[in-house]
Amino acid sequence: MESIRVFAPATVANVGCAFDVLGFAVAQPGDEVLVQLSDSPGVTITTITGDGGRLPTDPRKNTAGVSILAFLAATGIRQGVLLELHKQMPLGSGLGSSAASAVAGVFAANALFNDPLETRELLPFAMEGERIACGSAHADNVAPALLGGFVLIRSYAPLDIVCIPAPDELYCTLVHPFIEIRTEDARRVLKKYIPLKSAVAQWGNVAGLVAGLLRTDYGLIGRSVQDHVVEPERSLLIPGFAQVKAAAMRAGAIGCSISGSGPALFALSTHFETSQTVAEAMQAAFADIKIEARAFVSKINNHGPEIRR
Amino acid sequence: MESIRVFAPATVANVGCAFDVLGFAVAQPGDEVLVQLSDSPGVTITTITGDGGRLPTDPRKNTAGVSILAFLAATGIRQGVLLELHKQMPLGSGLGSSAASAVAGVFAANALFNDPLETRELLPFAMEGERIACGSAHADNVAPALLGGFVLIRSYAPLDIVCIPAPDELYCTLVHPFIEIRTEDARRVLKKYIPLKSAVAQWGNVAGLVAGLLRTDYGLIGRSVQDHVVEPERSLLIPGFAQVKAAAMRAGAIGCSISGSGPALFALSTHFETSQTVAEAMQAAFADIKIEARAFVSKINNHGPEIRR
Repeated sequence: MESIRVFAPATVANVGCAFDVLGFAVAQPGDEVLVQLSDSPGVTITTITGDGGRLPTDPRKNTAGVSILAFLAATGIRQGVLLELHKQMPLGSGLGSSAASAVAGVFAANALFNDPLETRELLPFAMEGERIACGSAHADNVAPALLGGFVLIRSYAPLDIVCIPAPDELYCTLVHPFIEIRTEDARRVLKKYIPLKSAVAQWGNVAGLVAGLLRTDYGLIGRSVQDHVVEPERSLLIPGFAQVKAAAMRAGAIGCSISGSGPALFALSTHFETSQTVAEAMQAAFADIKIEARAFVSKINNHGPEIRR
Repeated sequence: MESIRVFAPATVANVGCAFDVLGFAVAQPGDEVLVQLSDSPGVTITTITGDGGRLPTDPRKNTAGVSILAFLAATGIRQGVLLELHKQMPLGSGLGSSAASAVAGVFAANALFNDPLETRELLPFAMEGERIACGSAHADNVAPALLGGFVLIRSYAPLDIVCIPAPDELYCTLVHPFIEIRTEDARRVLKKYIPLKSAVAQWGNVAGLVAGLLRTDYGLIGRSVQDHVVEPERSLLIPGFAQVKAAAMRAGAIGCSISGSGPALFALSTHFETSQTVAEAMQAAFADIKIEARAFVSKINNHGPEIRR
């Protein structure tokens, strides 16, 4: 029986200055799924690995299951799907773990049925998966995981998505400290009102970031990653944040901030060697305060999910 | 004795969504200056026309005079300058009148002394002229008046300026209703704190506007011009604002908002004929409530000031 194996990437939402509107995909880590035709209708999750037993095997509660179910319902496909989910990245880290699973699932299902939909059309189903995982159908992780590169979500109603390919020499260091931030804490520290002055500085940076990406101006990208609104609040939840960020910048990163709602940090660099040096410096800074941290170094992923044979 | 005549353009600051960080220049209207070498040191203003007697002839209180004085001081030039200022656009309209004069003055003086500085290096002096006129050295009018196209002021400290040329087919309609808004009123209506939710929508639009400009995506430019933060407050000071904007959009504009702090409105269109139709529709909407309004229709100015013989 035919089976399709798909990898979908981790993603960095917010990108410092662009809270809730921008995210990008990395080459690794990411999640892998294997889908096969099933004799039963709907989705049957046969295996989950790498989650430490934390993820539900009920497809209606599982982010990959939900995204495939939404796809089957919308396309009117009655054939069922067997799903294996292989988590290859940390959960609850701010690296878009649930988005990677949702995207891998729906992308694989679409391929299994010979691509009835365009990749871009799969976004609403992946967003349904995100809704199960996070409580709201945010697109700032699923859109870059599905479409690759940087993706701007200009608006949700109507959904207005703008793809911004990453410049060739942009590398990302992700560092995940082994601490837990409860999502409700990450949300609660955000203020409902912000100073107009901070907002102006923030949208100046958002404009600079987009211009830097579209013109391959790495200096401008780096100067623009600064976050005046969210990082000052959320960084308080990450022990050693200031020291780790300073270590990244000293090691040659062009910009560094919190990945999504954390606790992972991302740093951008313009050479692979630099991004490795940055990873070591950030891990060492966490080690100084006795926090173990895992690092991933990769290029920006400009193409989204991959079918693996 | 050698003389140099220079035109510098009107400008639209804020561009809807990008309050305080973005502006663009238009082909017309604008101000004209004539400078000549003088036997006296400093700046002597010999003539001002088109201002209805409102502008000071003391060069230390005149925006064009101040910008030239700052240039002379910085370059160590001891020779004096005679200055004629011909206002060809309305004062206090939100069209960057003081910026046009400051830029025309300093650009002409630099040309008169055989360009000791690059055009970009003249910005701080034009900002000094703006400080005399407005009380603060804002760059969102002077930078596009000097450099042409759209200009992002990503930050002031340090000054970080990003030029974004306008797409070829972008036309601007400017409509100036003959009402007066006091600058202090325009400032007072702004709230010091804004909802995070509005700020997020705003920086999504700022990102969309920059991406639309750099990729010549007129639909995206139009969708992104929407202002969730300033227009809702300041438009209350402009009688008929909602009707005039609606008339612009019905007539085919892709976006419309307040120019600078108003009372002028700008509308963007993708054809010259459309921008003329938009002008008539906006004037008619003002006429409906018995407000006379003058309209200007032109391309975006992508080059800044011009030397005229």
